[in-house]
Amino acid sequence: MDLGVIIGILGGGALMIIGIFWGGGNPMAFFDPASIVITVGGALASLFVGHPMSRVLSMITYLRITLRQPNFQEERLISQLVTFSEKARREGLLALEDDLEELEDEFLRKGIQLVVDGTDPEIIKSILYNELNQIQNRHKAAALLIDDFSKQAPAFGMIGTILGLIIMLARIEDRSTIGKGMAVALLTTFYGALLSYLIFGPLKKKLDDRDAAEALVKEIMIEGILSIQGGDNPRILEEKLLCMLPPGRREAVRQQAAKE
Amino acid sequence: MDLGVIIGILGGGALMIIGIFWGGGNPMAFFDPASIVITVGGALASLFVGHPMSRVLSMITYLRITLRQPNFQEERLISQLVTFSEKARREGLLALEDDLEELEDEFLRKGIQLVVDGTDPEIIKSILYNELNQIQNRHKAAALLIDDFSKQAPAFGMIGTILGLIIMLARIEDRSTIGKGMAVALLTTFYGALLSYLIFGPLKKKLDDRDAAEALVKEIMIEGILSIQGGDNPRILEEKLLCMLPPGRREAVRQQAAKE
Amino acid sequence: MDLGVIIGILGGGALMIIGIFWGGGNPMAFFDPASIVITVGGALASLFVGHPMSRVLSMITYLRITLRQPNFQEERLISQLVTFSEKARREGLLALEDDLEELEDEFLRKGIQLVVDGTDPEIIKSILYNELNQIQNRHKAAALLIDDFSKQAPAFGMIGTILGLIIMLARIEDRSTIGKGMAVALLTTFYGALLSYLIFGPLKKKLDDRDAAEALVKEIMIEGILSIQGGDNPRILEEKLLCMLPPGRREAVRQQAAKE
Amino acid sequence: MDLGVIIGILGGGALMIIGIFWGGGNPMAFFDPASIVITVGGALASLFVGHPMSRVLSMITYLRITLRQPNFQEERLISQLVTFSEKARREGLLALEDDLEELEDEFLRKGIQLVVDGTDPEIIKSILYNELNQIQNRHKAAALLIDDFSKQAPAFGMIGTILGLIIMLARIEDRSTIGKGMAVALLTTFYGALLSYLIFGPLKKKLDDRDAAEALVKEIMIEGILSIQGGDNPRILEEKLLCMLPPGRREAVRQQAAKE
Amino acid sequence: MDLGVIIGILGGGALMIIGIFWGGGNPMAFFDPASIVITVGGALASLFVGHPMSRVLSMITYLRITLRQPNFQEERLISQLVTFSEKARREGLLALEDDLEELEDEFLRKGIQLVVDGTDPEIIKSILYNELNQIQNRHKAAALLIDDFSKQAPAFGMIGTILGLIIMLARIEDRSTIGKGMAVALLTTFYGALLSYLIFGPLKKKLDDRDAAEALVKEIMIEGILSIQGGDNPRILEEKLLCMLPPGRREAVRQQAAKE
Repeated sequence: MDLGVIIGILGGGALMIIGIFWGGGNPMAFFDPASIVITVGGALASLFVGHPMSRVLSMITYLRITLRQPNFQEERLISQLVTFSEKARREGLLALEDDLEELEDEFLRKGIQLVVDGTDPEIIKSILYNELNQIQNRHKAAALLIDDFSKQAPAFGMIGTILGLIIMLARIEDRSTIGKGMAVALLTTFYGALLSYLIFGPLKKKLDDRDAAEALVKEIMIEGILSIQGGDNPRILEEKLLCMLPPGRREAVRQQAAKE
Repeated sequence: MDLGVIIGILGGGALMIIGIFWGGGNPMAFFDPASIVITVGGALASLFVGHPMSRVLSMITYLRITLRQPNFQEERLISQLVTFSEKARREGLLALEDDLEELEDEFLRKGIQLVVDGTDPEIIKSILYNELNQIQNRHKAAALLIDDFSKQAPAFGMIGTILGLIIMLARIEDRSTIGKGMAVALLTTFYGALLSYLIFGPLKKKLDDRDAAEALVKEIMIEGILSIQGGDNPRILEEKLLCMLPPGRREAVRQQAAKE
Repeated sequence: MDLGVIIGILGGGALMIIGIFWGGGNPMAFFDPASIVITVGGALASLFVGHPMSRVLSMITYLRITLRQPNFQEERLISQLVTFSEKARREGLLALEDDLEELEDEFLRKGIQLVVDGTDPEIIKSILYNELNQIQNRHKAAALLIDDFSKQAPAFGMIGTILGLIIMLARIEDRSTIGKGMAVALLTTFYGALLSYLIFGPLKKKLDDRDAAEALVKEIMIEGILSIQGGDNPRILEEKLLCMLPPGRREAVRQQAAKE
Repeated sequence: MDLGVIIGILGGGALMIIGIFWGGGNPMAFFDPASIVITVGGALASLFVGHPMSRVLSMITYLRITLRQPNFQEERLISQLVTFSEKARREGLLALEDDLEELEDEFLRKGIQLVVDGTDPEIIKSILYNELNQIQNRHKAAALLIDDFSKQAPAFGMIGTILGLIIMLARIEDRSTIGKGMAVALLTTFYGALLSYLIFGPLKKKLDDRDAAEALVKEIMIEGILSIQGGDNPRILEEKLLCMLPPGRREAVRQQAAKE
Repeated sequence: MDLGVIIGILGGGALMIIGIFWGGGNPMAFFDPASIVITVGGALASLFVGHPMSRVLSMITYLRITLRQPNFQEERLISQLVTFSEKARREGLLALEDDLEELEDEFLRKGIQLVVDGTDPEIIKSILYNELNQIQNRHKAAALLIDDFSKQAPAFGMIGTILGLIIMLARIEDRSTIGKGMAVALLTTFYGALLSYLIFGPLKKKLDDRDAAEALVKEIMIEGILSIQGGDNPRILEEKLLCMLPPGRREAVRQQAAKE
């Protein structure tokens, strides 16, 4: 679980409720189903117009990704690739076939399979990078959808407020309802702004982070697979792959290697 | 039919009406011909100033494209190109002449015709890419027009609201008309925002998607035509073309190929 | 005359007047010399600060360009260049000297003159592209000026409204003038928005279009001049130049060529 | 003196005063020291946070540059460089030493000195371009500072208005002060907008123009110095340097050359 | 200490207080804990959603960097590198081992260590540039965080104001509280704008400056280390490194060198 996402959204929501109490307001007055329907429903409707339906329907799936703390265990991956490299140099590339079963990551398994099959390095490279490209395109499409929602939500919040003002103004003679009418009208702007600034805008950034993290792992895999096939020195391979990690994590791997 | 566009626009409109009822308003009060004339008419007038007239007059045509669910049948196209490739290797490039009649797509027919005529590959490539370029330029001009409308609509919505406020303020002594005057003034902003955020903004994205999809099909055709002329191995051609599709659709073709 | 510009501006203005009548307002109340002075004058003053004076004073000239329907007669130009090419191959480059007189376009005449003078092709190319560059820089500076006005007009519209509100608020005790004061204050925003969204914003796009059209013609000329000097085959030259036109116009030239 | 800057700023200011009179206001009511302190002072304070102190303190110097009409006398420079070129070809590079004294421009003098010293052309080129780069970086930093002020001024204008509104609202019971309070509150927005749209925004553009003009002169110098060292033909050098000027000014030089 | 940051923030704050007094307000009325909680807390909560938690928790550290006046002593660094270069040419690269202890900068020590170890120049270059890259990525992530806060603060300021307006409007019958309610509601917008325009927006620029300054120092180090290993002439090395400094500071070094 990515605690930051949970803490941020729940904490931000709690702050709003505290602010309402503190300001002498009633939190229940901030809950209005009609306003939610206009803001969220309107923004969703606009997504259906602009994006393929299948993508809009997968929105929940994309959001769930932001909640999962990614654990790609790059360190473990690198030592695994180094072990494969040593084995391949000792016993030949075909010996890697026995390890295929254990590999959980489909991308890595596919790459090693191609090496075992004796595929041409250029073709392996182009197949794997093509695969990575497609993954990143899917991620980008998902991030664009979330980004679009974060922009449409305040737009429909504003539309809802204008709608509410028009209703209120049409019966302005009844002075007693002006205040309440305007308060309700402003609710959609409030919802739209919270949805955008507290939730969907930041979640879009998180999706971009997740994409970058996964792309790094896949690039380490591609680099490793091609080095194994090329018969590179396992020490040099390890150094090369470690250089792809940030310095802090690099040290961790080195210390562990020194211990062994 | 692209159901998403229909669902989104009708659904979004329905939500607005529901919201008006729910808020105690009268949907008929939201219909004001003068406001529609100012918002839509003003935005259209500005398009005439900034774009060639012929393009503005084709706006409906562009919008209809977004309603059509594109069905380029890339899978069928690829197997067709592979069949051509096999035939050409077996019976020579001239044998493709018999198939020209059956080809519905003008772009593909033109390309195969050039191959049959024995045109130089470099020239075929430049002719077809030039053609693709011109298609994409037309698409881009159409998308820019829609995009422009989606930005001018809220601008004229705002202009209409200021116009309404000025009228209302000029006779502010008559207190009973203030509310109604402001309500009517706000209608143009409401129209402009809905036109932009629910309809034309998202439709512009859809047009961009349609362009990308058509460009992909044309690129598959160009790649296929040049490979056929070059006498490439049909298996390699198939693999190359499949790599241009997203992974899911790729599998579908492979499974079908395996069945056969 | 570019009818679109006329129709758009007059039509947009007419729509505003219709809207005012329809809304029960008096169009004369929308005419206020002081507001025009602040909005237009202020925006013009800011142009003098940011642009060279000579350029600001040529603004009217730039605007007149957008009214002229460009008629570069690319088709005629291409057949002219092809005729030159044939003549040069038959009778030598010097024979083109006789045709120099008839050439109306200065750019083309200069290019052919350089060819007749036996100037080095590299130098011709650099001279003509340098000339084209300077033309495009002038166009870009003009477009930037118009663009700047389209952004300053609403800014000074807003400044005028604030100015009007301050005046109105300073004597708010006189309740009877509040409405009229605010109405007048809003006029500058109204003027600024119309100037920007109906007129100068779109005109800037038109200027960009005009620039692109002229650049295309000049590029066709450069390509043609260099091909004539290089002694290229007139048929290949024609095909090359036609490819620089959009498909529709290309066909027109071919059909005419076939008729002859 | 750059008359445009003077005319624009004074003219714009005069227009505002005329507008105030015309609208029935009192220009003195638009002068409020507290509002000036908040708008200008606040924007300046924010510059101290974001830019090096020395640069903020040089702001006046940067602004003075925009007032000076640049007179780089490119035409005179070019004929001077051509004269040097002829002399160097006739009497050798060392002969240029006599002319060093007369050169007012430090950049040019440094370049000629390097040539006289027999420095390697590659090193001269890298030294002079490095110098030019540093000059442009200083210009860019100055332009960014002015640009930043033009954005912070309206921001602090808005902050001042909110500040004024809060003060006014806190004692809203006293109805007689509402109007005056709001009028004063709006003054900061008025100041911020004028500072940004009439003065600092356009001045930033002027600084960019000045930078481009000076860079052009320095590039002509570098081109000339290197050609002199390389012993290029003075006629070719003149043609090359003239091509760096806009066409109009080019003609002026040629006509003068023809007269001589 | 970077005085500019201190002067700017304290000065800007003082100006606000002066402005409040001058406008007849009570500075204590501008202090409202609930408003601070909503603006600052809400913006922080949104940072937790969009950024890794560890980065948000380091925010204070990033801010402290902007307060420290960087003193990289490039001049001293350059003469140190020149001294090393001379020593290495006289006594061999191994002789530098004695100086390693004294080096405070870890980056420089690591580089010299690699040289002493006889590592391949290409590998040293890639290790050091990789290190520099990682440093800059960390800086960029920090700057993005501060930038994000500077954008979220006014957003939550606006959210707080809407929240306050809704509370106030819900009990609008009590006329006496309207003014105070609105005043309090506007406080969050005031806080958000000050946080963004006076503090965090400018601090982001300062962080970018700090990053550029540190990158320059590291680049001087890399250049120097590689030149020492390559056995370049110490004079040429000095000239090369000096060229990386702005002209003013360059002169200072040269004058000192001349004095010695």
